[in-house]
Amino acid sequence: MARRSSASKRKEIAAADEPTAAVAQHTAWSPYNRVVVESIYPESDGGRYPVKRVVGGLFQVWADIFRDGHDVIGAALLHRAADESQWRRAPMSHHDNDRWSGVFRLERNIRHFYTIEAWTDVFGSWRSDISKKVQAGQKVELELAEGRQIAAAAARSGGAGAVQIRAVLERLAAATAPEEQVAALLDEGLQRVMAEHGPREDVSTHFQTFEVIVDRAQAAYAAWYEMFPRSQGTDPNRSATFDDCIKRLPEIRDLGFDVVYLVPIHPIGRLNRKGRNNSLRAGPGDPGSPYAIGSREGGHDAIHPDLGTLQDFARFVNSCHELGMEVALDFAIQCAPDHPWVTEHPDWFSFRPDGTLKYAENPPKKYEDIVNVNFYGPHREALWRALRDVVLVWVERGVKIFRVDNPHTKPIPFWEWLIREVQAGHPDVIFLSEAFTRPKMMKTLAKAGFTQSYTYFAWRIFKQEIIDYLTELTQSPCREYFRPNFFPNTPDILPPFLQKGGPPAFKIRLTLAATLSSVYGIYNGFELCEAAAIPGKEEYASSEKYEYKVWDWDRAGNIKPFVAAVNRIRRENPALQEFLNLTFWRADNDNVIFYGKMTANRSNIVFVAVNLDPFETHDVTLWFPIGEIGLGDADAFEAEELLTGAKHLWRGSAQHIRLDPQDNPVAIFRLAVWKHVDYRTPNP
Amino acid sequence: MARRSSASKRKEIAAADEPTAAVAQHTAWSPYNRVVVESIYPESDGGRYPVKRVVGGLFQVWADIFRDGHDVIGAALLHRAADESQWRRAPMSHHDNDRWSGVFRLERNIRHFYTIEAWTDVFGSWRSDISKKVQAGQKVELELAEGRQIAAAAARSGGAGAVQIRAVLERLAAATAPEEQVAALLDEGLQRVMAEHGPREDVSTHFQTFEVIVDRAQAAYAAWYEMFPRSQGTDPNRSATFDDCIKRLPEIRDLGFDVVYLVPIHPIGRLNRKGRNNSLRAGPGDPGSPYAIGSREGGHDAIHPDLGTLQDFARFVNSCHELGMEVALDFAIQCAPDHPWVTEHPDWFSFRPDGTLKYAENPPKKYEDIVNVNFYGPHREALWRALRDVVLVWVERGVKIFRVDNPHTKPIPFWEWLIREVQAGHPDVIFLSEAFTRPKMMKTLAKAGFTQSYTYFAWRIFKQEIIDYLTELTQSPCREYFRPNFFPNTPDILPPFLQKGGPPAFKIRLTLAATLSSVYGIYNGFELCEAAAIPGKEEYASSEKYEYKVWDWDRAGNIKPFVAAVNRIRRENPALQEFLNLTFWRADNDNVIFYGKMTANRSNIVFVAVNLDPFETHDVTLWFPIGEIGLGDADAFEAEELLTGAKHLWRGSAQHIRLDPQDNPVAIFRLAVWKHVDYRTPNP
Repeated sequence: MARRSSASKRKEIAAADEPTAAVAQHTAWSPYNRVVVESIYPESDGGRYPVKRVVGGLFQVWADIFRDGHDVIGAALLHRAADESQWRRAPMSHHDNDRWSGVFRLERNIRHFYTIEAWTDVFGSWRSDISKKVQAGQKVELELAEGRQIAAAAARSGGAGAVQIRAVLERLAAATAPEEQVAALLDEGLQRVMAEHGPREDVSTHFQTFEVIVDRAQAAYAAWYEMFPRSQGTDPNRSATFDDCIKRLPEIRDLGFDVVYLVPIHPIGRLNRKGRNNSLRAGPGDPGSPYAIGSREGGHDAIHPDLGTLQDFARFVNSCHELGMEVALDFAIQCAPDHPWVTEHPDWFSFRPDGTLKYAENPPKKYEDIVNVNFYGPHREALWRALRDVVLVWVERGVKIFRVDNPHTKPIPFWEWLIREVQAGHPDVIFLSEAFTRPKMMKTLAKAGFTQSYTYFAWRIFKQEIIDYLTELTQSPCREYFRPNFFPNTPDILPPFLQKGGPPAFKIRLTLAATLSSVYGIYNGFELCEAAAIPGKEEYASSEKYEYKVWDWDRAGNIKPFVAAVNRIRRENPALQEFLNLTFWRADNDNVIFYGKMTANRSNIVFVAVNLDPFETHDVTLWFPIGEIGLGDADAFEAEELLTGAKHLWRGSAQHIRLDPQDNPVAIFRLAVWKHVDYRTPNP
Repeated sequence: MARRSSASKRKEIAAADEPTAAVAQHTAWSPYNRVVVESIYPESDGGRYPVKRVVGGLFQVWADIFRDGHDVIGAALLHRAADESQWRRAPMSHHDNDRWSGVFRLERNIRHFYTIEAWTDVFGSWRSDISKKVQAGQKVELELAEGRQIAAAAARSGGAGAVQIRAVLERLAAATAPEEQVAALLDEGLQRVMAEHGPREDVSTHFQTFEVIVDRAQAAYAAWYEMFPRSQGTDPNRSATFDDCIKRLPEIRDLGFDVVYLVPIHPIGRLNRKGRNNSLRAGPGDPGSPYAIGSREGGHDAIHPDLGTLQDFARFVNSCHELGMEVALDFAIQCAPDHPWVTEHPDWFSFRPDGTLKYAENPPKKYEDIVNVNFYGPHREALWRALRDVVLVWVERGVKIFRVDNPHTKPIPFWEWLIREVQAGHPDVIFLSEAFTRPKMMKTLAKAGFTQSYTYFAWRIFKQEIIDYLTELTQSPCREYFRPNFFPNTPDILPPFLQKGGPPAFKIRLTLAATLSSVYGIYNGFELCEAAAIPGKEEYASSEKYEYKVWDWDRAGNIKPFVAAVNRIRRENPALQEFLNLTFWRADNDNVIFYGKMTANRSNIVFVAVNLDPFETHDVTLWFPIGEIGLGDADAFEAEELLTGAKHLWRGSAQHIRLDPQDNPVAIFRLAVWKHVDYRTPNP
């Protein structure tokens, strides 16, 4: 890593002595914010980071709102899309204990801002007071005069509602008895008009503007298929091409996937190229790791000539789109030593005292086939813009999803900037964070803007650890910004459970990934139950990361029908297309996990039972939460097992099932609540 | 309430259309904040409000701190008193899971600011890398050159430590073998110097400055005695004087109180003066409510002539100080209709359509003896300053504690401003919020700056509700800013429990107030078990709020020895002088509550058992948490009951006691852990 001079360092330390970015909280004070607005929900990190939602949904915002004394207050949720300059207003209403909420629909796939405004409702306060006095039989002449003044001023202001207010004032002028005057001024129509158009005092605004990233639906519901393009062919001695990949697309569509994710498709460096099984020196025919990007044929915006041309790639993208799928690309920032940037922009890299390029390393491990860019070198801004432009080039070429390689080894401020920059023009772009690292870094990448995140799912195998992890993801504050994408395997991860458990293990892990999370993916070979590992490691033997591979996509022992069935069930059951609706329920066997999801209106109710033991059959009693789904203890319900089509008419919470790894390692039940017809009242 | 014109209102709404105070979170972004600093603890409301501590204590601040990659980072807790312009630095250290903490001592009774700075430790990162490479047997020539460059630059910069660094560089120059060079550069002394004075990259600062109010010790530990000065004499037909009050001070000191709190001592209005028992018309000799402040004799800065002169008041203050007590005054902003301000500053008040002054009311209730100021009238700033100056006048006269009447009927921004203004010059001033209202308003008053707060304690009588409430106060986020002051009675509150329970009830409530909370108080008459109420209400019959009263301070049935004993026990046991150290423990009788407090070093350990039933004797088994106090199950410990002096030698967790309301409604045990001497090793 190149280090700046000690002198510039000193300056930095001196400047930081009074942190310029620091905001003291009392600057948020204003004498006029009389109505207190606090404890906003949702928000992330006290408003520092955006929360995330998907387009089309309702966005409900909560806050504590109150003021001194007993005056009546009003409040509005102010919101605007990032490209709008005027706030829109949604009314807020009081629930209890000074807790208010307002709601608006997220109609566009674009970031939105929101804040809250509250005020004293002058006429409403007057109305509340006089009502109590009238009820107590007190004289109210002066109060009537005050009410007339408020209404008259509102009428004079000429805004909307002035006509209605004037009509009331005319009735008032005609009325002589105080009771008639009271009745006119307490008229409910008048109150409605005045609440909307009448005078507001003490207009107070929360000191922060909050942000919500409104993603397209695919950000929260999709099934991914990860492929090595060069291994989609039939000749083990040469790279497959995009045309070979195109041939595979109908099969992938039939398996039910939405996203075809390609590992890097760029030219691969020749300097220090890695050989088979990650050996240090490549043999003459070895293609190298696609993550060592760049050679004389081009860099991050180029295509490996062995795969085809830009035109071939365009045909691949079009073929995906025609089949209703889309393409995800890898965004791996590291460069091969012979990447064009190294000679064109040496200032973007770090050099050692002997003038040689500094390779990537995590001592004592060395990665001599790649070099990292220096994010804080002398031409920081040019480098950051160039990296952003790499993303934008592929966006122009029809790619709207990027799986980002190792984002936790690049600066968080860079990601926050890059994602905001790209989404400013293309809010439909999705970024998946491939960080397998410490929990807080993973969460902060998500806060900084990553649409989806890899997770610890691959290493959560047993019942309690799955429940604990999913409870954290669905119930802790990270639920507002961290969207998991569950991969049971990746080119780097072949967990021992899959190595040892055979096809039942693959079915178990696929079902968990696809039904616990609404976004999941598999790396090609999973459907074939590929389990050959380097002994003692969780790495694939003869990984296609370092060599050409030819797969028989229909080889014996594959679970393709099962994969297709699970993806079909996801498509047909909206409850499985959500994530935060996950709840675990009681199953009296530690080898069986039992959970359910339902839509908010209960129109779709799905329960899943998974035998986590790939070796043995387990009997289990499941406790269906029949109260939660609107049934009484004695009511009957229909449970359809969606993999087999078997139907049960069940009654009561506890139901016994048997899960045989070879036959049915999992059961996915859709519940139908039978309408209760009371024949004593035949026309309900 | 005077309402501003509708036109000005419209302008306000239009201006608010783009809330100017709103801070969008992405403005907190800086490309250079590479080291992530987040999840600061303690803080209140995402940094919006200060937290509170007392002087002399250690202030520990926690944060998540991490960066991309594997470089070594450093961090410092930056802190400064409000009157200092330069940050001081306390080093932070890593605990686990990216959680760091730093600590500094709060040496002065003044608000402090704090934030966190973190950076990449350039030399530390280099040292970590080369150590791993040396261990792996790799060649490190280039690394040595890099290390030498870093050290040489640090030496050239000439800062502290340069001499030490130069000495190492000279050793290096003399060394020829790489091993010697490695040894010189990995020298631990050099690492310490370089961590402190070496180069720092990526200097990152949290975007907020946080604030901690550092109060004097009395803010968190004090016993208050509330008195009506005019009722401290012997003639029921005239006001007592400050001299009468002075005569009572030795007795109050002997009872063990620290603060003598006087209800308002200002001239009382004559217009609409209230008569006995809150009747609408005062009789000729009726003195009126001291909360109807101001008459032709003066306003909030004057003294009621019947009580004496400013000189008499000064003598009273001095007498208190000489006895080791201090004076608290009531700050009640409302004015009598004949308060001098009403004629001098009519623009500070509200008038009705007929030109008459608007009295205070909470419809249908009317308070015709008082008028409220209009906090947002045309001369808002002058009014606010005048109110602040009222406080400052009394500060000049030796009063440093203010009990604020009904703060929840005045604007929160006003309090936030006034308390900050007063404490800027007088950080030793304590404000007690007398708000009995909805929970969020009570908490927000505390956030806005009130040093202490009245609570719901008077209405928490039974075991579970006491545990629930105290658990909220000690365990929820409000623990950082809400300091309770427990009053079992006030001039407005004589709870049915006290009305009906006789002396045992008073002993029970006193013990709870004084040992659950570290700050508590009683209103005079409590020590006499005064219990005469208006039937069906929780108000005192013939309240001295509306008449002169003569008390026999030694009348039969008083519990003065008990009060003195409890206050003595508080003084002698530091564990009772803290609040957040409260923990509840198991007692197998719902009428008996059992809790304990101990100092952090376990040098003082106190447990309290209270029979909450004032009528019947209860037997109970208490479970002492002997593991928590460092004892094994079979160890013996001494338990001294501090009210009786009775001592027990107990062994094991479960101990049986009997609490008889007439004899010992409460038991306060101080535990002594007997040192275990192993006679096989006679010189431990």
